Amino acid sequence: MTGLAVIGSTGSIGRQTLDVVRSLPDRFRVIGLAAGNNVTVLEEQLREFRPRLVSVQREQDYLRERIRQDGLRCEWATAEEIASHPDVDVVMVGTVGKAGLMATMAALKAGKAVALANKEVLVIAGHLVNREARLSGASLRPTDSEHSAIWQCLWGEETPAIERIILTASGGPFRDRPLNELAGVTAEEALRHPNWQMGRKITVDSATLLNKGLECIEARWLFDVPLEKVSVVLHRESIVHSLVEFVDGSMKAQLGVPDMRLPIQCALTYPDRVPNATVPRLDLAQVGALNFSPIDFRRYPCLSLALQAGEQGGTYPTILSAVDEVAVQHFLSGHVGFTDIPRMLEEALDRHQSRPEPTLEDILDVDERARDWAEDWVKAKT
Amino acid sequence: MTGLAVIGSTGSIGRQTLDVVRSLPDRFRVIGLAAGNNVTVLEEQLREFRPRLVSVQREQDYLRERIRQDGLRCEWATAEEIASHPDVDVVMVGTVGKAGLMATMAALKAGKAVALANKEVLVIAGHLVNREARLSGASLRPTDSEHSAIWQCLWGEETPAIERIILTASGGPFRDRPLNELAGVTAEEALRHPNWQMGRKITVDSATLLNKGLECIEARWLFDVPLEKVSVVLHRESIVHSLVEFVDGSMKAQLGVPDMRLPIQCALTYPDRVPNATVPRLDLAQVGALNFSPIDFRRYPCLSLALQAGEQGGTYPTILSAVDEVAVQHFLSGHVGFTDIPRMLEEALDRHQSRPEPTLEDILDVDERARDWAEDWVKAKT
Repeated sequence: MTGLAVIGSTGSIGRQTLDVVRSLPDRFRVIGLAAGNNVTVLEEQLREFRPRLVSVQREQDYLRERIRQDGLRCEWATAEEIASHPDVDVVMVGTVGKAGLMATMAALKAGKAVALANKEVLVIAGHLVNREARLSGASLRPTDSEHSAIWQCLWGEETPAIERIILTASGGPFRDRPLNELAGVTAEEALRHPNWQMGRKITVDSATLLNKGLECIEARWLFDVPLEKVSVVLHRESIVHSLVEFVDGSMKAQLGVPDMRLPIQCALTYPDRVPNATVPRLDLAQVGALNFSPIDFRRYPCLSLALQAGEQGGTYPTILSAVDEVAVQHFLSGHVGFTDIPRMLEEALDRHQSRPEPTLEDILDVDERARDWAEDWVKAKT
Repeated sequence: MTGLAVIGSTGSIGRQTLDVVRSLPDRFRVIGLAAGNNVTVLEEQLREFRPRLVSVQREQDYLRERIRQDGLRCEWATAEEIASHPDVDVVMVGTVGKAGLMATMAALKAGKAVALANKEVLVIAGHLVNREARLSGASLRPTDSEHSAIWQCLWGEETPAIERIILTASGGPFRDRPLNELAGVTAEEALRHPNWQMGRKITVDSATLLNKGLECIEARWLFDVPLEKVSVVLHRESIVHSLVEFVDGSMKAQLGVPDMRLPIQCALTYPDRVPNATVPRLDLAQVGALNFSPIDFRRYPCLSLALQAGEQGGTYPTILSAVDEVAVQHFLSGHVGFTDIPRMLEEALDRHQSRPEPTLEDILDVDERARDWAEDWVKAKT
């Protein structure tokens, strides 16, 4: 049995991770669950999976009382303690934003396999995460659908054979919207992703394609290639999850229905492939056509900004990630417009003086200041 | 330096193999070349690559005289001797039909790596080839574009993880021709393949899709899966060279421009991937769409017959391969019609009494009788 910790258990990735666990009951034992503030869902998860350890950031008293009433035996712990507990073999980091960073570092330090679905962790601290993994011999298992695809294409291959990593992007809900209408789109429209069911923040990031920029930076760290070897192609169907081109001109792609339970299971059961009965099979003859086209960077200024921040390195990606989190949150609550998101990013990146080779403290400090700046930006506007 | 033998050096695969060698001069030394009767091309190859060993089936006296005049130092040898020579590391078997069988067996017995581009070898004697490889520890390197694709998708994977192997088929030049016109198509039309430049026999086999049936049987032996796990999908662009579906629902595909020098180089340099400057790169955004559709078996009766022969096993695939060689030859010279090819195959398979677990002698005997029968069939018709 694989001992499993799920950081961010009540989010979209966390719930789908527990779906996979539910479908493979003989394979996993849930050791710990860490969540933010969704205690209703967390309580259900505790009842079903009976983990030994639990962590929640808010509503602790309420949950404590519910646990007592339910007669559950749960110890309280921090997310970092759960991620590094001796009984844990694999840690799924399914949080959004920088929330997963400390748990990821703790898990790597303790030598765990980390299934990483939180891209911001690598975006803001890729050099530190990779250093920690190298020191402890711990391994990262890519869990984003795109990075899982690249990972699978690279099994049995060597890094020097990589010519180019090609991330596919669906283009999001506004891929065909006239450019001059983008300023007026609503949060509700942005949340209608054509192919994927995901959390709210990442769905908006998929509409701006900031998400794809973060993924390029993530790929750079996961697969140890310079950012200029990472490119993006528009692929409306989200069937080809990404591709790798090799130095000899051969390309490999990973395909599947757009369902996060596939890459999640792949990361959890690695190196085994385990039969999956819950996810529908891909029937290419039924799909008919897979379409590819170049990215129109005028439509997606956030992607250009992200690639630029990635090239600049240092704490620029921290600015990108922090300001985007604040901007998206305020877009969702209607305080700023859709095209304000790249506007805020550009202004923040332009003003920033980066620290080279930043420490974790540097990053957390820059992150906090960037959020304050972004909140002020929104206040000044509204 | 890798010592290389090329069996069938003047054919399409042989010439492209030497193209690859020419582009990687520091990597390969050509130890021996074996050809059929194209002494003009063979003489040029001898002058350029200066192999120690040479084999030719016809026009020996003429070639001997030319070699003397050119002042070349070549020893005469059989194809089997070349394939098993101590200085040879890799043997490319690029012949068509059963011609490569004895050389393949000799190479495997001597423990060589065999780059196999001749599918009939496995179709008629897969069980013997695999047994020989197991005994000597020699390895087969798939070199058909489809099988190279599957092979690459399986690097880093385990056989039990394979759910299904999916071969792509372009559908050949008659994929859109009304069914009632097929009886009247000419050899010239059949030789106009929409995507690939190949030898004449395999091009006709690609028009009947008999070729795809042979490839299914070949895949069964190369990748050690039952034939029912091998399927075919129509893919007009010949960009996705084949796919593997795994038990967890994930699929991997290998893609590239349709150029045989890619899989040939892949087989020759394995396990390394070596930069390739001669073959153009695939640009998916430029390709635009990759289309997939189900196979219409009414259009391709040869494919059904091949799959049936493959399921029946024994010497049925030998009948299939031998009768097809004769039928295609007579179709090319205008003695029989395009739809006579499946007619001959069906009649031959219906009449055949298979030998189970046939020996090499059984196979060669059945092969000879099948050819005689096919020649008689054509004579009776004309």
